[in-house]
Amino acid sequence: MSLTTRTVSDLLAAFRSSDPTPGGGSASALTGAIGASLLAMVAGIPKPRAATEEDLERLQAAGSRCAGLADRLTALVERDSEAYAMVMSAYRLPKATDEEKAARRVRIQEGLRAATDTPLDVMRACSDAIEQGAVVAEFGNRNASSDVQVGLELLGAGLRGARLNAEINLGSIKDAAYADHVRREIERLAAKCETGIAAARSYLA
Amino acid sequence: MSLTTRTVSDLLAAFRSSDPTPGGGSASALTGAIGASLLAMVAGIPKPRAATEEDLERLQAAGSRCAGLADRLTALVERDSEAYAMVMSAYRLPKATDEEKAARRVRIQEGLRAATDTPLDVMRACSDAIEQGAVVAEFGNRNASSDVQVGLELLGAGLRGARLNAEINLGSIKDAAYADHVRREIERLAAKCETGIAAARSYLA
Repeated sequence: MSLTTRTVSDLLAAFRSSDPTPGGGSASALTGAIGASLLAMVAGIPKPRAATEEDLERLQAAGSRCAGLADRLTALVERDSEAYAMVMSAYRLPKATDEEKAARRVRIQEGLRAATDTPLDVMRACSDAIEQGAVVAEFGNRNASSDVQVGLELLGAGLRGARLNAEINLGSIKDAAYADHVRREIERLAAKCETGIAAARSYLA
Repeated sequence: MSLTTRTVSDLLAAFRSSDPTPGGGSASALTGAIGASLLAMVAGIPKPRAATEEDLERLQAAGSRCAGLADRLTALVERDSEAYAMVMSAYRLPKATDEEKAARRVRIQEGLRAATDTPLDVMRACSDAIEQGAVVAEFGNRNASSDVQVGLELLGAGLRGARLNAEINLGSIKDAAYADHVRREIERLAAKCETGIAAARSYLA
């Protein structure tokens, strides 16, 4: 059974158990999914601030995009745990002969890449939702502004949590070119998150 | 059916719908519950850093406390939506006569207090879990330090999200003494959160 078809109480119990998955990576994706869902909600509340047909269309498009990103983040809850399980099963491979050692090394590196790419995807989805958050903040119903702010808080926390997970796996990756590329992407997304949150908040102040 | 006995996908869909509940308050409580669950997980992982029997006992006590706080935050997911529903139903009460107006005013104020006390309880539970986070960071398994950091991120976001909800309801509360008391409590909890996160992080650096 996938993590997100469980009940909320069951999933929380799974986070709480000392089993290695689900862990911080899945928790970050889930938090992002909650944040994106709140922004989608606000975009759909009647009596938005959008005054023109064009602004209303922008608000509706932002809402649809946030709903899609919430779905994507929901899928990433599962995928992060799968990637981490790949890494752990690779570390358990036999290493008696040189062939076994070489094969194990390759599998470990493949697993680590999946366990880096997945939180990077979480960062991207959170960052995209934050960008839409500025549209929701500008044109959404004013009475829901605390929901927009909570959504931004959760997306920021999801993005920072995912970053921690990407960076910890990156530390064991041997491919320097890939690692450099990912580090630059992490910096870019973290900066975009800060700018996006500030832009969205400027409409709520 | 309570919110947390639904599947995760169902609850996310409920956040996303334009129905007013569940909203940012429940989302903040849920995020805190995820964060506290991660700290409880780390406290239970084998090979902790705790070297003495006494330190191990402190770690185990912190883990139990975080598990209890995760349960409390899970219950607050539901309670926040109930409190908000109370406010909304009070606003819909009849206001044709002076008696009706007076009764409606009382019910609105009761609802607003519940809708302020609940996020305040979320702030308290997040703040308590963050305090335990320092013990988990000091004595938990070193390989799980990113899970501790993600737990702290989510608890901080849950606390700030709850603060936004407490403050928005506080703005409509007429009882100045109660409002002053809550404002001071909010400041105290926010400050304790910052200090607690810094203390926990000092063990992870």
